[in-house]
Amino acid sequence: MEGVKALVFDVFGTVVDWRTGVAREAKNILSPLGYSLDWIAFADAWRAEYQPAMEEVRSGRIPFSRLDVIHRGMLERIRPRFGLQKVEEPVLQELNLAWHRLDGWPDSSRALHRLRKRFLLAPCSNGNISLMVDLARRNDFPWDAILGAEIAGDYKPKLRVYQVAAEALGLRHEQVMMVAAHSNDLEAAAKAGLRTAHVARPDEFGPGTGEKGPTVPVDVAAASFDDLATKLGV
Amino acid sequence: MEGVKALVFDVFGTVVDWRTGVAREAKNILSPLGYSLDWIAFADAWRAEYQPAMEEVRSGRIPFSRLDVIHRGMLERIRPRFGLQKVEEPVLQELNLAWHRLDGWPDSSRALHRLRKRFLLAPCSNGNISLMVDLARRNDFPWDAILGAEIAGDYKPKLRVYQVAAEALGLRHEQVMMVAAHSNDLEAAAKAGLRTAHVARPDEFGPGTGEKGPTVPVDVAAASFDDLATKLGV
Repeated sequence: MEGVKALVFDVFGTVVDWRTGVAREAKNILSPLGYSLDWIAFADAWRAEYQPAMEEVRSGRIPFSRLDVIHRGMLERIRPRFGLQKVEEPVLQELNLAWHRLDGWPDSSRALHRLRKRFLLAPCSNGNISLMVDLARRNDFPWDAILGAEIAGDYKPKLRVYQVAAEALGLRHEQVMMVAAHSNDLEAAAKAGLRTAHVARPDEFGPGTGEKGPTVPVDVAAASFDDLATKLGV
Repeated sequence: MEGVKALVFDVFGTVVDWRTGVAREAKNILSPLGYSLDWIAFADAWRAEYQPAMEEVRSGRIPFSRLDVIHRGMLERIRPRFGLQKVEEPVLQELNLAWHRLDGWPDSSRALHRLRKRFLLAPCSNGNISLMVDLARRNDFPWDAILGAEIAGDYKPKLRVYQVAAEALGLRHEQVMMVAAHSNDLEAAAKAGLRTAHVARPDEFGPGTGEKGPTVPVDVAAASFDDLATKLGV
């Protein structure tokens, strides 16, 4: 891996556990109002609207907007299904911030601090800047900059998002390694000219549901963030 | 100052000492090649090309490009004046990175760490992202994100640059305070709807040359970064 100067990270599912976090936050906000849902099913349903919503932007059918705005629209689509039609706007806005209050996987912060000794680190997420900032503050993620969709004005896996991240760091595409738990993200990053590292996050959608390993060629395949740090020699 | 959630900072002159840093780096690079200049005069001449170069972009006469590119163009303009016509391209590229290797004023890092306990912190500089990242790594500036010209696609004091910084943090304009040693920067930030804090950096252009205090109305006027932290109650 000589020549790699920076690591850029997918965040939802790779660095943080969105599923149990969204379920917890939804429960904390809605159960005092008398709602009793299958909270995990609610989190899954909310996230399931993600790719269709992304595709609206990537295809150019709607202009780019921040993920916070997209998340709010996704929430609108699932509200009727969960009997949340009467929830008031301020509560919905608070609920939408559930995505800002997710916890890292247990090794994320520790391994990022190890990796920071050798590499520049930044998220290359579809999440917007303030969402990434809030997750970093909550979890002590030592990012050097917040890169990704908001600075590129488009969403992964569009190739420009990865390339803009590298260019913002003043690096050639091949000097940057994309780290993700999702093979499709890494396939696009490789097409964009970046190096790639897969990290297994086997519990993303519940125990044993995540990718145990990459389904595409990658430069590094790691079992965890700690393993990634070790494999990158730090 | 209730309601202020984030501080955004001018960097050149306010957080870092560009003048002695550029002089030192230029000397380190050029004197082994046999050049002997008035290094401080060289730094001042390079910086003197800044406002005219900015104005080319702000007026729309040339498209936005990163400050690294602008710095390289500014260097071209002063080379003949300093007898540097024969310096080769790789050396010029290295010289251009002098701006990435500046030192903070003595209290900058310490006070930023204090301020970080209460506020989100980001540069709102005309410097590009990689330049800000390099200065942060060198000086241990604990930024939450890198905001400023590169994410806005325009240069201060255009009002959108300040507003985009606030919006990227998910905040209303008045929830963000711009910190600078230059009254014209603060005047624009106030017009953009931000709160403002002036910090005296009296030695920016040599001992006793900087603004001792603001020449425009500001919300806070501080004698140093340490004083700013104290005045903001942290």
